[in-house]
Amino acid sequence: MKERKTYVLAPDSFKGSLTAKEVCEAMEKGIRKACPDAQIVHVPMADGGEGTTQALVDATEGRLVKKIVTGPLGNQVEAMYGILGDGKTAVIEMASASGIHLVDQKTKNPLITTTYGTGELIKECLDQGIRKIILGIGGSATNDGGAGMAAALGIKLLDENGSMIPWGGGSLSSLDRIDRSEVDPRLSECIFEVACDVTNPLCGPTGASHVFGPQKGAAPHMVEILDQNLRHYADVIKRDLGLDVSDIPGAGAAGGLGAGLLAFTNCTLKPGVEIVIKYTNLKEKLKEAAYCFTGEGGIDFQTKFGKTPYGVAKTAKEVCEEITVVGIAGMIGEGIESLYEVGFDAIFGIAPGASELEKLLQEGSVNIARTTENIVRLMKKCEKN
Amino acid sequence: MKERKTYVLAPDSFKGSLTAKEVCEAMEKGIRKACPDAQIVHVPMADGGEGTTQALVDATEGRLVKKIVTGPLGNQVEAMYGILGDGKTAVIEMASASGIHLVDQKTKNPLITTTYGTGELIKECLDQGIRKIILGIGGSATNDGGAGMAAALGIKLLDENGSMIPWGGGSLSSLDRIDRSEVDPRLSECIFEVACDVTNPLCGPTGASHVFGPQKGAAPHMVEILDQNLRHYADVIKRDLGLDVSDIPGAGAAGGLGAGLLAFTNCTLKPGVEIVIKYTNLKEKLKEAAYCFTGEGGIDFQTKFGKTPYGVAKTAKEVCEEITVVGIAGMIGEGIESLYEVGFDAIFGIAPGASELEKLLQEGSVNIARTTENIVRLMKKCEKN
Repeated sequence: MKERKTYVLAPDSFKGSLTAKEVCEAMEKGIRKACPDAQIVHVPMADGGEGTTQALVDATEGRLVKKIVTGPLGNQVEAMYGILGDGKTAVIEMASASGIHLVDQKTKNPLITTTYGTGELIKECLDQGIRKIILGIGGSATNDGGAGMAAALGIKLLDENGSMIPWGGGSLSSLDRIDRSEVDPRLSECIFEVACDVTNPLCGPTGASHVFGPQKGAAPHMVEILDQNLRHYADVIKRDLGLDVSDIPGAGAAGGLGAGLLAFTNCTLKPGVEIVIKYTNLKEKLKEAAYCFTGEGGIDFQTKFGKTPYGVAKTAKEVCEEITVVGIAGMIGEGIESLYEVGFDAIFGIAPGASELEKLLQEGSVNIARTTENIVRLMKKCEKN
Repeated sequence: MKERKTYVLAPDSFKGSLTAKEVCEAMEKGIRKACPDAQIVHVPMADGGEGTTQALVDATEGRLVKKIVTGPLGNQVEAMYGILGDGKTAVIEMASASGIHLVDQKTKNPLITTTYGTGELIKECLDQGIRKIILGIGGSATNDGGAGMAAALGIKLLDENGSMIPWGGGSLSSLDRIDRSEVDPRLSECIFEVACDVTNPLCGPTGASHVFGPQKGAAPHMVEILDQNLRHYADVIKRDLGLDVSDIPGAGAAGGLGAGLLAFTNCTLKPGVEIVIKYTNLKEKLKEAAYCFTGEGGIDFQTKFGKTPYGVAKTAKEVCEEITVVGIAGMIGEGIESLYEVGFDAIFGIAPGASELEKLLQEGSVNIARTTENIVRLMKKCEKN
């Protein structure tokens, strides 16, 4: 172990405080104070949710691209996607175009919200010559089964009069048939890796409408309509495309966008953190590591259900059991003991004492640096003895 | 170092949350989770201020004794002192009988507040056969130069008519002479170790009245009177006892109680933490230690001005440079870097995240245990590699 001395810094963002890259920088500051000549590798991480585009762009030295697209309510919104350092892979967060943050208490309405803008972002990537897309599908405002996305890519969802059905989960009841004759031909050349951490099916009591509909503004009677419409949508897909998406785990993610992707694209659904680990090349970077620091705004028993620090810790121990894995967090919650068994050697909070959240969010960098410095001081002391 | 495995736990209290002994217990809980068979030695500490009696009683397996005495305003108060495990040494906090917490905004008045009750506690100890007293003199409500204490021990402070002068710093102007003919004869057999962390002289701009008078209720004109009175008091002591106490560092501590002790008892003034280190036998206990955990409610740059964690860290490194010294605190303040040079290997806060003080005070034990567990987990991991 003596020759391994590299520190790999692979945190998620501290939401509301620092991006994953900024967390890396604060960690490095602390490490350098305790160990000025340390070899340090930054691997800003994410779990497929908010911050994934930023993290993958940062980790691969890629770039961010802004694009005006159709928002969930049909209005114009400025969305963003990333092109990774390889120049060939794009990363899109569906929420950037079709996210819940783009509606408010009054306007949220899954009967009408659409994933059309997400389709436009995909189209934009195809225009850029991209044929591999990482798609994060958390945080949607929609319940349209990805119908809007499909329409943006030239897939015609027609009513019995041969007219395009309107946007939104409420209109799927009028879907009569799917016409792919004018689909964007480049779509079949493109491979999608979909970051999806839920296993909900499209319909039924554990489906998109029942589980996620209410938080998007669906009252109980609306949930029933949405669920029936998605079932009808699945039936039409099955009849016209020969694929039964209704029971595929994850089909219910993002208001059924999972199902739409399964029906209309070459995609695989994977846990978000796995995709991020793959595209950041984390395993390779860990090969030289003696220490791996990870972290997130909050760490608790839920961390092991696919959150970034869990994925990082597990990966580090797979690469080498001897790597010391330390987690840090703004908020340490219940049940962190269960994380010790899955790779974490130690977990520390960064709060300096009694403090309001607002102040802690502002002082994230200082608190991360101080905590990291002390962790490294302690490790060095113990290795010396 | 391999044979050294003992953990010495030597924290101060976490004020408002846990006594030093309770901090030790919480630390042990955390250590045991990470290292079930650890050898652990509890050395609850203090710095001569509040909690010193409790800590020394806990550290030596002594006992607490309650006693009704005269409070600073002449009323009866229940005070407490400790008898150490040796049965021969007492520990008194002057504040227990004559402290600022025994007066309020309305009644605080250093013209009349007296140290008489502190003298009664000393007398009680003499009655118990005690001939060695550790006296902590922080937190006083008084500015009487220890005149009240002297009176309680049979030293007559007389006016020109041969009557005893009244209690309080305001009456010292009428002091004509000191008559020791009826002093408690046992007083000369008793040795005092006075825990005193200030070096203020008795009088003048840095003296008791000017520096500490205002917080005890002295308005500016009152400060002048009190200062003149203490100067007169020092003059009479010099004339009648042949000792010039006015310029001795620490004479101005506790409203001049320092001067009174120097004048009327066999005493030495020492930094509180040194006395506590001595009577807890900390050095001896550290001889087997591989790890020393200390801590206090707050740790910051001021810690190195004689606070418990500083004294403990310094002592540990004197015993053996290889001992790993870790400080923990409820609140990490500014400038802890300066503590790394004086013995601390690492310092960690225990707060789990954004939280109100009240909640942190209630959850001290859980937060100490969790933090300690993770520190030990990290140390064990690094020693293994």
